[in-house]
Amino acid sequence: MNKIKYGKLPPESLRNIIFKRLGSPNDNILLGPAIGEDAAVVKIKDNIIGLTTDPITGAYKDLGRLVVHINANDIATRGMKPVFLLVTLLLPQNFDLEKLKYIAEQMDTEAKKIGVAIVGGHTEFTPDIKNPIAVGFMVGEIVYNGYVTSGGAKVGDKLIMTKMAAIEGTAILAEDGEEFLRNRGLSEIEIQKAKEFKNWISVVKDGLTAMETGVVHAMHDPTEGGILGGICEIAEASKLGIRVYEKNIKISEITRKIANIFEINPYYLISSGTMLIAVEKGKESLVVERLKQNSIDASVIGEFIDSPDLILVRGDGSEESIEWPRQDELWEALEKCKGE
Amino acid sequence: MNKIKYGKLPPESLRNIIFKRLGSPNDNILLGPAIGEDAAVVKIKDNIIGLTTDPITGAYKDLGRLVVHINANDIATRGMKPVFLLVTLLLPQNFDLEKLKYIAEQMDTEAKKIGVAIVGGHTEFTPDIKNPIAVGFMVGEIVYNGYVTSGGAKVGDKLIMTKMAAIEGTAILAEDGEEFLRNRGLSEIEIQKAKEFKNWISVVKDGLTAMETGVVHAMHDPTEGGILGGICEIAEASKLGIRVYEKNIKISEITRKIANIFEINPYYLISSGTMLIAVEKGKESLVVERLKQNSIDASVIGEFIDSPDLILVRGDGSEESIEWPRQDELWEALEKCKGE
Repeated sequence: MNKIKYGKLPPESLRNIIFKRLGSPNDNILLGPAIGEDAAVVKIKDNIIGLTTDPITGAYKDLGRLVVHINANDIATRGMKPVFLLVTLLLPQNFDLEKLKYIAEQMDTEAKKIGVAIVGGHTEFTPDIKNPIAVGFMVGEIVYNGYVTSGGAKVGDKLIMTKMAAIEGTAILAEDGEEFLRNRGLSEIEIQKAKEFKNWISVVKDGLTAMETGVVHAMHDPTEGGILGGICEIAEASKLGIRVYEKNIKISEITRKIANIFEINPYYLISSGTMLIAVEKGKESLVVERLKQNSIDASVIGEFIDSPDLILVRGDGSEESIEWPRQDELWEALEKCKGE
Repeated sequence: MNKIKYGKLPPESLRNIIFKRLGSPNDNILLGPAIGEDAAVVKIKDNIIGLTTDPITGAYKDLGRLVVHINANDIATRGMKPVFLLVTLLLPQNFDLEKLKYIAEQMDTEAKKIGVAIVGGHTEFTPDIKNPIAVGFMVGEIVYNGYVTSGGAKVGDKLIMTKMAAIEGTAILAEDGEEFLRNRGLSEIEIQKAKEFKNWISVVKDGLTAMETGVVHAMHDPTEGGILGGICEIAEASKLGIRVYEKNIKISEITRKIANIFEINPYYLISSGTMLIAVEKGKESLVVERLKQNSIDASVIGEFIDSPDLILVRGDGSEESIEWPRQDELWEALEKCKGE
């Protein structure tokens, strides 16, 4: 079986196909491609910079917003500040220039919110695409205490999550599945509230606030594959196991309702907006407090263990294995909307 | 009329829609978005780096090759050396992983040829696209004499072109229009020869060789819009006019034959593989000689003038205006293949 539907290429294919073919070796690569690592770290002469790329597809109205924040978030996982953005915009034939202006305005506004300058890009009309596609490229620089990777967690480290799970998925489904949700009893107020989740998808402040404490060992921002996918990734990157307490994973009541209506698992729903932070044992309260002082909710949800096991502790104390996501729950939910 | 078919967004739309919306201002931007400038130049602490992004669409078999070289070429126009590459790969649903491996192998091979390391990326299966899309991001560093822009040409500067016009277009049409060309009398040997033009699309060596002389004022690599489109762009970026001598523009006999068969103008056919170099008057022979010593053919094709005019001097001495390209001739040619 070598056919896959939608979403990110699975880890084994990344390893076997991509990671073995990376051009010229270079001693200035401090962090190259690896599972669960979303931004590279390289040295240019004496300076260390972070580099990342992420595409936004299938979410037209928020294309500009997402291309800024999704790329900025990857840099934030390095504990770095995102600084310079380039964007390639691929537009369907006959795409309305007023809509292009809308996308450009949104990029401008969102970039300003996090102090990012758009320094370059490429915009073209592309044959054989149905929707606009934005691909971003972000450069980040160090501001506090060097940088961290997603693979730097140590045995005993506590795992903190900021805000809530499935923030991004909640916003996307409220927007693109509005009719589906309304027809199945979600109220207008709830739909509006869910749409506003889009304002919480940046984790730049989360990452920099945590980094300033000096006790962070690793960070990772869950995106496709949801909070549990992100937890698998940070554990895999750190070559450790993990024990996660389900009752500590924060998730909004609205997100639960939406997940129930679509019959999907919100723990595997696209989750930009939460940052996973591995911190030195005993220092977790310091980091949680510092985040809360900066108006970022945070909770300790687990710890890294010296075994390959990925364990979810249920509310009743029973334990089960955390499965790697096959594909994000978003796609299944969006398929269901198509009939509406 | 605000609908456009295929190809790059026209300059007036870039100016009015994109360039006015660039996020936070930043004093470390040495060269931001501008017409005819294909790579940004920014300062990170004390280091100057070049940044660029370009997508490759609609050329499956050479996707890996092109995403490496097209992005490297943009960095080369800054007189910089391309160093680090990131690639976002968007694959159609059910894309064969063997084909992905082929793309990855090609990227690896081509990156090694020019000493580039692939340090990151993103690979996913995307709904609603028919063909794979590769979007590259290249970071470059200074090796000789700082950097140049496309807008640095001065009145009196001589314009040099390397190799030939329409190298990339010749290779693409030989590949994607093979049947069309064969049915209209192009020989097998000519088709094979034209396909091999793909091996000449890098201008990294061209740019660095020229830069080392220390007399280069500006560089630009013509892509979509062809050699004449590229000439318009370097003149516009430099806020000068230009006089170009058609008889000095090198173009292969095979390219002429292919252009005749498709009834297109090869001067407006996608042209990666040639570098436009503006050099101090009197130093043009030095640069041409240095290029030739390094096995890169080069010729002086014109000079920058103190007027807004873009002038093409025909073989018979008559003069005409150079028109900005509306869209690359490639698209018209590829449309004609569809019936075949």
